[in-house]
Amino acid sequence: MTKINKAAVVGGGVIGGGWAARLVLAGVDVAVADPDPDAKRKLDAIMANAERAMARLWPGQTLGNIGSLTYEDSIGAAVAGADLVQESAPERLDLKKRIHQEIGEAASDDVVIGSSTSGLLPSEIQADMPHADRMMVAHPYNPVYLLPVVEIVGGAKTSSAAIAKAMDLYTSIGMKPVHLQKEIDAFVGDRLLEAMWRESLWLIKDGIATAETIDDVVRYGLGLRYAQMGQFMTYRLGGGEAGVRHFLEQFGPSLQWPWTKLMDVPEWNDELIDMIATQSDDQAKGKSIAELEEIRDNNLVDILKALKANDWGAGALIQNPAEESVKSGNNNLPDGNVLETWSGLVDQSWTDYNGHMTEFRYLEVFSMATDRLLVWIGGGPAYVETGASWYTIETHIKHLDEVAAGKPMRVETQLVQHDDKRVHLFHHLYGVEKGNLLATGEHMLMHVDMAAGRSSVMPDAMKSVLDVIAERQADMPKPDAAGAAIGIRQK
Amino acid sequence: MTKINKAAVVGGGVIGGGWAARLVLAGVDVAVADPDPDAKRKLDAIMANAERAMARLWPGQTLGNIGSLTYEDSIGAAVAGADLVQESAPERLDLKKRIHQEIGEAASDDVVIGSSTSGLLPSEIQADMPHADRMMVAHPYNPVYLLPVVEIVGGAKTSSAAIAKAMDLYTSIGMKPVHLQKEIDAFVGDRLLEAMWRESLWLIKDGIATAETIDDVVRYGLGLRYAQMGQFMTYRLGGGEAGVRHFLEQFGPSLQWPWTKLMDVPEWNDELIDMIATQSDDQAKGKSIAELEEIRDNNLVDILKALKANDWGAGALIQNPAEESVKSGNNNLPDGNVLETWSGLVDQSWTDYNGHMTEFRYLEVFSMATDRLLVWIGGGPAYVETGASWYTIETHIKHLDEVAAGKPMRVETQLVQHDDKRVHLFHHLYGVEKGNLLATGEHMLMHVDMAAGRSSVMPDAMKSVLDVIAERQADMPKPDAAGAAIGIRQK
Repeated sequence: MTKINKAAVVGGGVIGGGWAARLVLAGVDVAVADPDPDAKRKLDAIMANAERAMARLWPGQTLGNIGSLTYEDSIGAAVAGADLVQESAPERLDLKKRIHQEIGEAASDDVVIGSSTSGLLPSEIQADMPHADRMMVAHPYNPVYLLPVVEIVGGAKTSSAAIAKAMDLYTSIGMKPVHLQKEIDAFVGDRLLEAMWRESLWLIKDGIATAETIDDVVRYGLGLRYAQMGQFMTYRLGGGEAGVRHFLEQFGPSLQWPWTKLMDVPEWNDELIDMIATQSDDQAKGKSIAELEEIRDNNLVDILKALKANDWGAGALIQNPAEESVKSGNNNLPDGNVLETWSGLVDQSWTDYNGHMTEFRYLEVFSMATDRLLVWIGGGPAYVETGASWYTIETHIKHLDEVAAGKPMRVETQLVQHDDKRVHLFHHLYGVEKGNLLATGEHMLMHVDMAAGRSSVMPDAMKSVLDVIAERQADMPKPDAAGAAIGIRQK
Repeated sequence: MTKINKAAVVGGGVIGGGWAARLVLAGVDVAVADPDPDAKRKLDAIMANAERAMARLWPGQTLGNIGSLTYEDSIGAAVAGADLVQESAPERLDLKKRIHQEIGEAASDDVVIGSSTSGLLPSEIQADMPHADRMMVAHPYNPVYLLPVVEIVGGAKTSSAAIAKAMDLYTSIGMKPVHLQKEIDAFVGDRLLEAMWRESLWLIKDGIATAETIDDVVRYGLGLRYAQMGQFMTYRLGGGEAGVRHFLEQFGPSLQWPWTKLMDVPEWNDELIDMIATQSDDQAKGKSIAELEEIRDNNLVDILKALKANDWGAGALIQNPAEESVKSGNNNLPDGNVLETWSGLVDQSWTDYNGHMTEFRYLEVFSMATDRLLVWIGGGPAYVETGASWYTIETHIKHLDEVAAGKPMRVETQLVQHDDKRVHLFHHLYGVEKGNLLATGEHMLMHVDMAAGRSSVMPDAMKSVLDVIAERQADMPKPDAAGAAIGIRQK
């Protein structure tokens, strides 16, 4: 897969900022051009949201090679040398045409130029620009750093080579590019949204339901279906054993039923705006936009994880930055005798009804810490593919202090002992703010030949890294808790 | 909250069967009336899906008092004595009127009669029936046992008392009833779906996108938003700092843009049906309806869990059957010296890349087993509300065998020792199919005064239950692994 080395983000509002965040976190160097003097502040806020989301998606895992973020005074400077240019300017054709003229003048021949427009036609935007063959619509959804879909729509001058490269580039940053066969106003997603929106406006105007009721029907019902399967797949299931053709044949007549106010558009006046805005205020129950954004992103992260657990849809696209980092060679043992194997926050989904981290999540953290050490000794995911692996055969946890959701933690790891088949590890889990010891984890790991299904001697290269760790840590005292047994001592 | 003692399900297809499954699993006795001789087989299949979903939602937890399911030959027999009657017959007004006549004749005065119709008006269905004041539309979404929304729509004769009771009854079975202010064809959800559907038909007919592409735009994009927030909340966020009024004022003009084929409906002919059906077949990639239903339900369960972790929307509605069971008094120590504290399946989300249960999920299972024992000694959720609790202070796990996704497991628990503040437990985790020992878990728990933040003496009543267990298990040999330490023994 082609990797994007440099991207230019032209226009840095909610959408442009979301693009910059997705690109940077995927390891791409990004140059931003935006005339707004407040652009950096706004983009920093979006970047903070994106980083918080990624920290929840991959707790404690380093995000591999994060890209750099620079600001340029001119479009030309941002675009120079970029593989991908993403324009997210306001939705005015004259403005977009002027910007794409500048982009085209500075762009290299094999660039991909995507416009985030949600409605304008690519043939119109690209009409007069240089490098028009490389320009297309690439329409994302907010928040861009979490929602993977991007609609790819070529114009009259767009080359098929540019479309093919765009499909490749957007895929490389964890997105789902969908290519539309013909250009059409508003493309696919916004047409669907607009159809729902008009219908909803009538429902409010006619006093059938409030904004909150309409939203509740969506989020407690059809939205739960649409997070994983669209309407055609849903109707396929609705047809059941009788099949989709039978279902469609029966469905047809309802198109003629009086189920929508198709023939008219409600008058858009102050009264209707006020009605909707007031209902929206009621629905928000005093929560600020920033609070709602955090709720939205937390929900999206967990929905994406849920789909990942089923290897389905948007969840199947999620790239594990630790694995990416390992693949890209970031797997050498750090210097020094103190080995920090994990650092991250207590995720809110890790807590019990008291708001403290729940028992088994301690082991999840220790397990991630162990995985990091295994990568350093050459026993990570790539090694597992060779047919050998390290299995935990024994674990001893001592819980020493409570820790609440959101608090930062870190793990230091000591190698207690090892031989040619076994590793005896001892983790200390600390709260970062107070430096207090939260728990210790003692683990025995066995090197296993997975095909044979039994223990085996590890390779010499792996053992020599363990020898280095043992030598560096030789002067560390053996932890008090190591080798201890569980039991009630008599008073 | 009012509890439903008996419900009648009239018509047992996909929707009626889904109602029966939701009701039974919520502890309601259900009587089914359906003239289809194949009704029981179809309902059994739906019930199996629902039970599988609940087993994933609450792994290893008993589902409290499951209701009974009986089949009656007549509507009258099913309806007699029911608090709730749910009709899910085919969508023909004459048929529905005839059925509701029979329901009304057999119903008690304070019944709630809900129709699952997705389009017919309640005023028309209830026009001539007895007990018309108790009848309303209660329109659910498929699968009813997982999706919580139900649209409540009264007709001309429906009493406000019946609506209020319906809101209460549907809430009691974990649903989200939303009350529409006026009756209208197709209510809210199906109008939104219909609007999207018509738009999609044009996109396919005009060759803009295939069924799969349209569905991808939904499930990789807007559907991820709609699983948690509807369109009004989403647009509120779209408005950002400038506010929803400003956003709406700008949004207005787009209503006049040529973004939908509003004015017409595509001709519904064999050619269009064939085009869509063929694209649907392509999209399914050979997966059967049953396979897709399982995927859908697995995704829905994990999306609901994801939202529960954020205490949001549909996730916040999920009732923990174990807690319900505890509240309803099902918390006595079982007879015998063998204490089975957990049994359930290895969830697919619990496995690593090898398809085996991952390390920390063993501790999650042991933790659930410990919680069950705590309920039996009187230390469950209700006890925690008094300000005291049991904290795990130490855990020792030995991993002895692997176990794959979907395999049944069970835990037996032995009380090794206890004093007036501490409990020393030993769990054996077995694979059910082979009877093999998968792992052991040894745990020390401390009784804690949470306000004081330190250990405290447990109540006498609790200690006496532990004494009973110790006496019954006195002859059990102490497990070999109990009290063992971790370490590499020299050869």
